[in-house]
Amino acid sequence: MPKNESNSKTNDENDIQKKELHEDFLEAKELLDSHINETSEDELSGVDITEHLKTLKKHDEDEYTSYLEKLDAESLADAAIEMPEHMLKDVLENVPKEKLVEAMEELESDDQVELLEYIDDIDEVKAREIFDELDDDDKEDILKLSNYDEDEAGAYMQIELFKANLDETVKEAVDRLRSLRHTGELESVYQLFAVDKKGVLKYSIPLADLIIYNFSLTIDEVVRSAKEDEFRPKFAQDSEHIDDVVTKFEKFDLSVLPVVDSRGVLVGRITTDDIHDIIQERATEQIYNLAGVDDEAEEEDTLFKAGKARAIWLLLNLFTALIASFIIGFFDKTIETIVALAILMPIVSGMSGNAGTQALTVTVRRLALGEIEFNDKKGVLKKEIGIVLVNGLVFACLLGIVAYIWFDIAMLGVVIACAMFISIMFAGFLGTVIPLTLKKLNIDPAVGSSVLLTALTDIIGFFSFLGLATWILL
Amino acid sequence: MPKNESNSKTNDENDIQKKELHEDFLEAKELLDSHINETSEDELSGVDITEHLKTLKKHDEDEYTSYLEKLDAESLADAAIEMPEHMLKDVLENVPKEKLVEAMEELESDDQVELLEYIDDIDEVKAREIFDELDDDDKEDILKLSNYDEDEAGAYMQIELFKANLDETVKEAVDRLRSLRHTGELESVYQLFAVDKKGVLKYSIPLADLIIYNFSLTIDEVVRSAKEDEFRPKFAQDSEHIDDVVTKFEKFDLSVLPVVDSRGVLVGRITTDDIHDIIQERATEQIYNLAGVDDEAEEEDTLFKAGKARAIWLLLNLFTALIASFIIGFFDKTIETIVALAILMPIVSGMSGNAGTQALTVTVRRLALGEIEFNDKKGVLKKEIGIVLVNGLVFACLLGIVAYIWFDIAMLGVVIACAMFISIMFAGFLGTVIPLTLKKLNIDPAVGSSVLLTALTDIIGFFSFLGLATWILL
Repeated sequence: MPKNESNSKTNDENDIQKKELHEDFLEAKELLDSHINETSEDELSGVDITEHLKTLKKHDEDEYTSYLEKLDAESLADAAIEMPEHMLKDVLENVPKEKLVEAMEELESDDQVELLEYIDDIDEVKAREIFDELDDDDKEDILKLSNYDEDEAGAYMQIELFKANLDETVKEAVDRLRSLRHTGELESVYQLFAVDKKGVLKYSIPLADLIIYNFSLTIDEVVRSAKEDEFRPKFAQDSEHIDDVVTKFEKFDLSVLPVVDSRGVLVGRITTDDIHDIIQERATEQIYNLAGVDDEAEEEDTLFKAGKARAIWLLLNLFTALIASFIIGFFDKTIETIVALAILMPIVSGMSGNAGTQALTVTVRRLALGEIEFNDKKGVLKKEIGIVLVNGLVFACLLGIVAYIWFDIAMLGVVIACAMFISIMFAGFLGTVIPLTLKKLNIDPAVGSSVLLTALTDIIGFFSFLGLATWILL
Repeated sequence: MPKNESNSKTNDENDIQKKELHEDFLEAKELLDSHINETSEDELSGVDITEHLKTLKKHDEDEYTSYLEKLDAESLADAAIEMPEHMLKDVLENVPKEKLVEAMEELESDDQVELLEYIDDIDEVKAREIFDELDDDDKEDILKLSNYDEDEAGAYMQIELFKANLDETVKEAVDRLRSLRHTGELESVYQLFAVDKKGVLKYSIPLADLIIYNFSLTIDEVVRSAKEDEFRPKFAQDSEHIDDVVTKFEKFDLSVLPVVDSRGVLVGRITTDDIHDIIQERATEQIYNLAGVDDEAEEEDTLFKAGKARAIWLLLNLFTALIASFIIGFFDKTIETIVALAILMPIVSGMSGNAGTQALTVTVRRLALGEIEFNDKKGVLKKEIGIVLVNGLVFACLLGIVAYIWFDIAMLGVVIACAMFISIMFAGFLGTVIPLTLKKLNIDPAVGSSVLLTALTDIIGFFSFLGLATWILL
């Protein structure tokens, strides 16, 4: 009875799957328990906690809510930043306001702003309530940071940092660090920033250097006893574009960078972990944009926004595809006479589209990595043209021969070879020039360039192939 | 005389361009000069120096060579790592061996290995000669590091670090740090790693904590006076995959991670700047692979390798396009009868190719970012199917109406709508399943998945459209 057998098999599979799911649930619970009771060997990160909570939610809403309440304020804060919207909603509904305020106070200023803005998206009233309960220092910091544009370095900095006046002794500074560390107010300290009486940033002294000096010296004496320029600080302007800050981190292998305002006054610092996030986000943005996908919409939990953003690109694509079809339409008589043309058409457009995408992708990415300077543009174009020149010739000949053998019409081979060469050459040229031009116009070269490229290569491909065929073969 | 006018205009433009080029040259020279004489305000990074040298090379080979010789050993070393192959060749030819050895000794162990392997690619004999001249410690370190696979954490670590035994006092450790700093042997120190007598890593103490303790305490006493687990170290195994190390840095916002061998003995450390490079490289790799471009070949200075790598993907694409053409070939009689089919064909394949690429790109990137776990696969597929279901319906109707209006054949509208819906659904399904399957088979889901996807969506698109047309319209 094969039917029965397959049925029991499916049942078994279902059982196994259920068991696996249940094991997930137990494992997540266990890990969260040992985190809460601080018995675990490995600390859980905010991402981990969020993942385990998600597993709980899938199986048992009540357990999930109880764990939201059980988490300590710091873990809750770390997790909240990483949560998808629906989970943060659960937090806002189930966790008492006092604990939310406490959690917020555990975060550093940049993360406070991020979380508060995130809460504000979901529940404005709640965000306002939480903000009102924060202590005045936190409020002031948050207001300061939210004044920056999202592309400005200032929006990414944290206000907490370790600084000292030039006339303070090392000991005084270290004593202050001790109390900052004991209250847990300051993490990831790698540098002491030395400022003058007006708060202007003068020097940046790595702790690895500070620790080897005599603690009774003043900061000024430390600086003067070192090599000239030893402690000259690298810094970012608060109004500087964050992408330029990322470049500085990469060029100089930094772990932290002080941020100053227009008068040179030290106002905050940016740490390396924020830079990691920015690099990843930028890369995701580029990859998605090249494929006609919106990175922010994809991160939403609902299908609607992601689907809608994709539909817009598909609509644009439909529009350009219709233009290409109109081009084909001009040659309907030719196609009726030589149906081989309809059979070979997609190869010409597909190959040139591909060659163009190769050039486009390399150019977009190299622009993003800062590998192409203004002066370098000619060199880039030369390289890309060189590549498509050779590849165009190779594949033109190859396809010409294939078409000749397949349909046994010599001139058809010639026509498709010429069309292929022309369209691959154009594709390589356009794949390079489109992003370079968009960049020059200050438009993100990853957005829309694929659609534009495909539209143009299709049009050129079909036109040259069918046009040459009409001219030569008819 | 318009002709003359335009001629003089071109001359002017040429002059301006020449002037601009010359200004570049002078600027590069000036910046290098002030770097060499240490009179500049801003330090030049290895990348900067390489860029300026490149500018010199473009204009004046002799000046360029003289600057290669003028640079101090450290700057030369920093720049050499960043140079394209042809420039490193110039360095090897023009800089005396003693200075090359000196430059090599300025680098930290991980960079030494990188540069030496790079030199070895160009000139094996020279690489061997330089290696032989290094002091024994450096040689030993290099041999140790080159034993690791390129994906292992060990290959990315540097051996230089700041460590202390548990029974040492803070003062003893700091004294050692002082001499390490004075000889310039150790940079970017953020942590003291505490080891037992066998060298096994026990604790990791941030300098920001170490500096606030009484220097006469032993490390053991420092640890015991802190909160339990305060200094429990996060670490990487030397044999661990480097991608897992990157994940650790991101989850825990680290700036440095100690590396231990299988017995737990501390063998090196990985710093955040190496992680930046890896993140960028991985992103480039994904973007390029999705477009059928090889990231390593593109970095070469010659066109040949990049062009060849791209040609391989184009060849594969030609092959799959031919299969699609064969499918069309089955329906030659249908096309001859209804030439509108040939006109509309590219829209079906283009749209479904696009919808598939959207799903593919999101899945590939989310896999790379670790956002998709094994258990999550069903959820991902559900989401992607949901999106193409709605978008498929929308665009099927839309195109159906357009086709009906254009050609005034009602059933043609029905045929293309059905074909469009079928092929977009398949595209979304395949765009998700292909990378998930490749990942499960331990194949990089970014490599080749685009070609495979386009081939399948083309075949399904053409087959459903022309098949339905033959069945319904003839």
